[in-house]
Amino acid sequence: MEYVLAQAGVAVFAISGVLSAARQRLDIFSIVVVGLLTAIGGGTLRDVILDVPVFWLEDLTAFWVAMGASFAAFIGIRFILKLPLRLLSYLDAMGVALFAVQAIDKTLAFGHSAAVAVVMGLITSIAGGIIRDVVTHRPTLLLSRELYATPIVLGGMLYVALLHLMPSPFCRLVAMGVIFGIRAIAIRWQLFLPLRLTLKIDLDQEQG
Amino acid sequence: MEYVLAQAGVAVFAISGVLSAARQRLDIFSIVVVGLLTAIGGGTLRDVILDVPVFWLEDLTAFWVAMGASFAAFIGIRFILKLPLRLLSYLDAMGVALFAVQAIDKTLAFGHSAAVAVVMGLITSIAGGIIRDVVTHRPTLLLSRELYATPIVLGGMLYVALLHLMPSPFCRLVAMGVIFGIRAIAIRWQLFLPLRLTLKIDLDQEQG
Amino acid sequence: MEYVLAQAGVAVFAISGVLSAARQRLDIFSIVVVGLLTAIGGGTLRDVILDVPVFWLEDLTAFWVAMGASFAAFIGIRFILKLPLRLLSYLDAMGVALFAVQAIDKTLAFGHSAAVAVVMGLITSIAGGIIRDVVTHRPTLLLSRELYATPIVLGGMLYVALLHLMPSPFCRLVAMGVIFGIRAIAIRWQLFLPLRLTLKIDLDQEQG
Repeated sequence: MEYVLAQAGVAVFAISGVLSAARQRLDIFSIVVVGLLTAIGGGTLRDVILDVPVFWLEDLTAFWVAMGASFAAFIGIRFILKLPLRLLSYLDAMGVALFAVQAIDKTLAFGHSAAVAVVMGLITSIAGGIIRDVVTHRPTLLLSRELYATPIVLGGMLYVALLHLMPSPFCRLVAMGVIFGIRAIAIRWQLFLPLRLTLKIDLDQEQG
Repeated sequence: MEYVLAQAGVAVFAISGVLSAARQRLDIFSIVVVGLLTAIGGGTLRDVILDVPVFWLEDLTAFWVAMGASFAAFIGIRFILKLPLRLLSYLDAMGVALFAVQAIDKTLAFGHSAAVAVVMGLITSIAGGIIRDVVTHRPTLLLSRELYATPIVLGGMLYVALLHLMPSPFCRLVAMGVIFGIRAIAIRWQLFLPLRLTLKIDLDQEQG
Repeated sequence: MEYVLAQAGVAVFAISGVLSAARQRLDIFSIVVVGLLTAIGGGTLRDVILDVPVFWLEDLTAFWVAMGASFAAFIGIRFILKLPLRLLSYLDAMGVALFAVQAIDKTLAFGHSAAVAVVMGLITSIAGGIIRDVVTHRPTLLLSRELYATPIVLGGMLYVALLHLMPSPFCRLVAMGVIFGIRAIAIRWQLFLPLRLTLKIDLDQEQG
């Protein structure tokens, strides 16, 4: 079940990469490359930093799912564009929640501390999207005012805390629920963190 | 012979990095850094993902060639700018063809599947250029309408297929010929994939 | 003493990441992520390329310092903005000098050549800043006319040369002094390399 969900997460990320790439007129191969980078970039970075075998070199399933989803998105773009965009955001939020929890498990399994695990959860779930934004030359998701990193950090910290208190499957459900829940609420009601938890300075003035 | 060609590929990539960097007024050290990143970035990423020793740490030749070519390009920029730009594109296409085939060989030699090898061929031959575009803050080559990724993917797939059918040196020649050939034709007649194999959506409208 | 200085370098890099991120209105978690990337990105890349354990996985101190400095910068932004911006530049220059020398030591300790060590010194001290600029979608520091890479390259070359001539602690002091000194002079009098050591071409014209 979880394996299937993970592949669904990969597919959703690939589709989001295709949608991002398709803002310029690109040919099918460039679009598939962006889809692939988005879907497997985060996990690749995680594995390279942990110095463990890169996951898609060990089990090609994720690779083929990302490839297939990118091609399918290219072909079925009209169908996708008829879906409410919010649906894609919810699917993306589900993928993020799953990626984060799986990355935390993997990192802990290799003997790293809880703090490192939370960071790896964050890296795995946002690096793909950042790479997507960088190669398509757009402001990265870190620059959006949306609550993107926040639910992952909160849910990740909750997850490693809960692991001391209750059986693992239950913790996972709670953590994924929290990550998805906060993000979904933010998408639904377009919420941001309160202004006092944000920052904007006019540095150019200071630099003058 | 092939070793010499590989170094020539490195040199051409370094020059393309210098040309890209020199669009802003940069000093010689920044320009050489961009030249180096362009020339050895792709192979570095390949080796990091495969978790094998990074090639220029093992044999510094490529490193010095990239360095030398960057300096030479800086000094001889007037001479380079007198060359037809198309000549540089053809040289770049040759470098790409060679890099892709070598990366596929290296990946297969480490026991990975044909699919992984083709991806590594693609990564090795385009990542340097993408890094060059990112650090010089320009739209990446993935966003250009040019046939850049396409010949590498097609030639790479052909190469791993041919390896089952005929002796390796012959396959390499054919694959490099196909990659270079398609790219050269695209450069010469400014060809793109047919419109139906491209995609452009106006997502902002959908998001509104 | 040196350990403390290194952590101070990490803290300064984190603060520069926060200042860069805060040009857009971001929430606290995104800002901390940018601070972290800036502070530990360079060393992470160095360790990944050298294929040695990533430093902050082995000793979490740098990680917590980066995290703490980012939070502190978020909270105390008004205080930071009252400091002369030049002070931050000097602190950054100190961090760069220290990072470069430490990276050279580490690289040599793993048996690599002097040339590789100088490159690793450069990578470690500028990659964090480049990543910061890329994820905040701004022109990277490589594109600035400031003398940024130059002092590191010169000081690094001097350092590996001096190591053959005199005891290591003395070499380190000289090298760090040179890197910091050139950078500080450049900041103070806004110096650049002479025009003949820079390059700017109008490639679009050539490409037409």
